[in-house]
Amino acid sequence: MAETANPRRFTDFLRGLRAVRDFKRQPIPDDVVHDILEVARWSGSASNRQFAQIIVVHQPDSLQALSGVGGYAGHLRGAALAMILVMPGEWAEGETFDEGRMAERIMLAAAAHGLGASIGWFSPDGRAKAKQILGVPDPKVVRTAISMGYPARAPRRGKRKPLSDLVLEERYRP
Amino acid sequence: MAETANPRRFTDFLRGLRAVRDFKRQPIPDDVVHDILEVARWSGSASNRQFAQIIVVHQPDSLQALSGVGGYAGHLRGAALAMILVMPGEWAEGETFDEGRMAERIMLAAAAHGLGASIGWFSPDGRAKAKQILGVPDPKVVRTAISMGYPARAPRRGKRKPLSDLVLEERYRP
Repeated sequence: MAETANPRRFTDFLRGLRAVRDFKRQPIPDDVVHDILEVARWSGSASNRQFAQIIVVHQPDSLQALSGVGGYAGHLRGAALAMILVMPGEWAEGETFDEGRMAERIMLAAAAHGLGASIGWFSPDGRAKAKQILGVPDPKVVRTAISMGYPARAPRRGKRKPLSDLVLEERYRP
Repeated sequence: MAETANPRRFTDFLRGLRAVRDFKRQPIPDDVVHDILEVARWSGSASNRQFAQIIVVHQPDSLQALSGVGGYAGHLRGAALAMILVMPGEWAEGETFDEGRMAERIMLAAAAHGLGASIGWFSPDGRAKAKQILGVPDPKVVRTAISMGYPARAPRRGKRKPLSDLVLEERYRP
């Protein structure tokens, strides 16, 4: 599991992830999609419950329809595909957290293959419409859509607050 | 950003992450902690709001106290340190998702350095107690504690459902 030979090679990779929302018109090979899904499959989940399911959307008509249901999903329109996360809708807090974990894994696996990706969320109304479009029954939740494709241009550099604003000092009060 | 030279090297690494809860009595060098925090700093967040803050807990007394407040946090006891995620408590759904994303990054960055780590959640009661111990004011949320240290033994192999149960077929209903 552990990679100790060249840790910075991996942490540079982790740190380098940026959202990409403009894609080339170029399909993603099946074996690449499969490799990304295998990373998603091995994502961790609370008590190893493996809540999530994934719908891989390839059809341009479906991508177009999903991009317009509402929320931050317009970037689906030009994507080679989208991975839509489907959660059971039984434990909101735990499922939302695990959904974040899996989305991050999928983004990283895509980046490893030279793909760009972006996480989108459907609005409350958009979730209902997306479920209808995809034939997902209640009480399941469709909230997160990850668009994916070969980047049309280099992603922006990004911006983050300094480490001193992120890390709080330990204050133990026994 | 993109790594195309040897994608599988990275996706093997991503897929290989396992939770580790038994640690050696061996401190983690400061530069390694710093490198992991830099990965956390570059985690994505909804609309780049960068909600999260992190308290790095080193003191054995603090770790001991936190391990006992309630929830799935007993593994903090033997850890070299813990990274406690502090969220603003303003938007439950978005913060929970972003917390999952950041936790996953931290786990992966630790693994890159040959460290083991495990995500723990405090129970509702435990969250209040953990906030008291760490001096975190309302309305902030302390839910996730990531224990970290050099693994005492190889992690278990893990188990996941087959890809055919994870991935649903695309069903477009125009």
